[in-house]
Amino acid sequence: MDVPAKEVAVENYLVRCAKLQLLMAEQGVDCFLASPSSDMLYLSGCPLKPGSRMAVLAVPQGGSPVFIVSSLEAPNLAGLGSAFDVRPWADPNDPVGLLKDFIGDRGNLTFAISDQLWATYLLQIQGRFSEARFIPGSRLLHEMRIIKGPEELDLLAKVSAMADSVFQKVTSLKIEGLTEAQLETQLGILMLEEGLESLDFRIIASGENGAAPHHFSGDRRIGWGDPVVMDFGGTYRGYYSDTTRTVCAGDASTEFRTVYEVVRRAQEAGIAAAQPGVPASAVDFAARSIIEEAGYGNYFIHGTGHGIGLDVHEDPPVNKNSTTVLEPGMAFTVEPGVYLPGRFGVRIEDVVVMTPQGAKRLNQSTKELIQLRIWNAQVLWVPRKSGSPKI
Amino acid sequence: MDVPAKEVAVENYLVRCAKLQLLMAEQGVDCFLASPSSDMLYLSGCPLKPGSRMAVLAVPQGGSPVFIVSSLEAPNLAGLGSAFDVRPWADPNDPVGLLKDFIGDRGNLTFAISDQLWATYLLQIQGRFSEARFIPGSRLLHEMRIIKGPEELDLLAKVSAMADSVFQKVTSLKIEGLTEAQLETQLGILMLEEGLESLDFRIIASGENGAAPHHFSGDRRIGWGDPVVMDFGGTYRGYYSDTTRTVCAGDASTEFRTVYEVVRRAQEAGIAAAQPGVPASAVDFAARSIIEEAGYGNYFIHGTGHGIGLDVHEDPPVNKNSTTVLEPGMAFTVEPGVYLPGRFGVRIEDVVVMTPQGAKRLNQSTKELIQLRIWNAQVLWVPRKSGSPKI
Repeated sequence: MDVPAKEVAVENYLVRCAKLQLLMAEQGVDCFLASPSSDMLYLSGCPLKPGSRMAVLAVPQGGSPVFIVSSLEAPNLAGLGSAFDVRPWADPNDPVGLLKDFIGDRGNLTFAISDQLWATYLLQIQGRFSEARFIPGSRLLHEMRIIKGPEELDLLAKVSAMADSVFQKVTSLKIEGLTEAQLETQLGILMLEEGLESLDFRIIASGENGAAPHHFSGDRRIGWGDPVVMDFGGTYRGYYSDTTRTVCAGDASTEFRTVYEVVRRAQEAGIAAAQPGVPASAVDFAARSIIEEAGYGNYFIHGTGHGIGLDVHEDPPVNKNSTTVLEPGMAFTVEPGVYLPGRFGVRIEDVVVMTPQGAKRLNQSTKELIQLRIWNAQVLWVPRKSGSPKI
Repeated sequence: MDVPAKEVAVENYLVRCAKLQLLMAEQGVDCFLASPSSDMLYLSGCPLKPGSRMAVLAVPQGGSPVFIVSSLEAPNLAGLGSAFDVRPWADPNDPVGLLKDFIGDRGNLTFAISDQLWATYLLQIQGRFSEARFIPGSRLLHEMRIIKGPEELDLLAKVSAMADSVFQKVTSLKIEGLTEAQLETQLGILMLEEGLESLDFRIIASGENGAAPHHFSGDRRIGWGDPVVMDFGGTYRGYYSDTTRTVCAGDASTEFRTVYEVVRRAQEAGIAAAQPGVPASAVDFAARSIIEEAGYGNYFIHGTGHGIGLDVHEDPPVNKNSTTVLEPGMAFTVEPGVYLPGRFGVRIEDVVVMTPQGAKRLNQSTKELIQLRIWNAQVLWVPRKSGSPKI
């Protein structure tokens, strides 16, 4: 990836830093320390990963932000031009000392730090600023990041379309007879071929494994008639996709069809309930009510969704307790599921963005029940409504 | 991935926890909090990834370790059987409260926490244990993790062999004309096909980009005669590979051949210097001396290597200041490089493990200069010594 991502001009990052500085002034924060994470990417376009060499973008309440990074990483920041001052440290040097030189040494500083900064670095910083106060950086940044700008919505739409294309291709594979891990590998290859720059999660949960929402793909072999939950995500220019479909490797059982239809209706009800001005909990309520009415309420064991952007899980949460009022520009998943222990699970998930007219789906994969059919090593499937006659 | 990794029996994890508890008693640590990271994997075999739901393996100084994880993750821990107590929390619940219930509430507790625990969780824990002391977990675990057991060495050998196989295949690709990012994608596909379970880094640095040791692969197109640094790593059962070769897309220049030969000799000298009983700095000294004598000392801008295992960078560091005395069972990289700004870079890297007889290379890829040749869309290359007549 080039630095910065081409779609966002350097000026936009400086505007984000300036907005953050206004929030810092309001909340009495002296310095924001963005670690290599979604925060650093959001504020500067710099896609550094966390590692054994400390790196932070230090944003003071007033004045220019400064990168404190290892000299090994410094050349990668050249693309940022003169927008950000870069202070490299060499291996035997002292990044926290550089931070102290930069921000000064009065006792009562308040630092906001990236939620994902590694604890070892926080402890080092706390040790050297023993009088300072530390608060989670999300307390400031979440209100900026929760409303996506036009270029962010474009990237979310793009990465979601890439995920849809991958799903289309994975359902062209002969999956019966593969182990979950083998299918996970095939899925990863399709994701890379599609242009996703990282493979962040690939859940392949077949048969009874589908009852674990976050199943680790394993050696279970996918057999005829098995439901298979496929939930995967990767990034493009840092922005995440996250979509789930549950397919059947061959003929679906009557019970699976029933549950599938309940989850499909719940998911559509959740999307329909997402309107500007309502709390995010209304989305959860709408989806959950359908599942409860069908008698599966005890088997919907997680919230209905989560915000998405430069992190796969970010604000707003979408569950029973979500008081966030939905506004245009918010992006989140709608992903109800039913998990029947020892039998199977069904989950259907799309990313949606709020518009003044309601939620717009970024994933367009069909929600009709897909029954993968094997015929002379070719897969034939036709989306069709559950209950319609077999082909 | 199944939980736990098959190669390490559950009993071994319990032994590791018991050893940790002895160290905790010696150092006055009341509770070790292993976050989803190499620490959790090392102590339990559980390959959870960090995320928006807090998860820790809490190891008390005495008594049984307990997992505090989201109810969504709990089913994945079933493979651990009764070896570990699992206390799931549901979305609206309070993991830090569960931790407090488990560990008790006296004021003067000392916690050791995983270096990679997210700061947001450390701040939450610090807020609820306001009198407690917090130290980095590596202070205890590093002395256990720095000496690899037989099953760990097997896994390191296996993943290194997988990386060698990937390198063999990537040098069969037609790379001239590809962009760095395109070659990075091809490399990723080969890694997945080889069976690597994650793609952790893939550096493709061509021409002048090779002068940045940690270059982000970009849109630069690889041209005839370009040196290309290829440095990549992924995991198998959690253990990392990390290997680098620098090849030439076509005919190598005289200067490149000269620098390549210097780096190759430096790398071999580093490996030869790695003997039990000498400090790790001796490895750096041996490699650096060759490069300095050749007049390129100012262009070798990093340490010679780093420990490797369940993290790609772990103890021991291998640089000028490394006082760690080498012992059988240690695993680390030897990776000198020369970086000529605006022109090119050369790096050669193998993972080695210490044996009583010296360092044993886990990577077996050739170090002869590879010049990839294109002929009717087929690549022909023959490893040969630099300076030998052109084919």
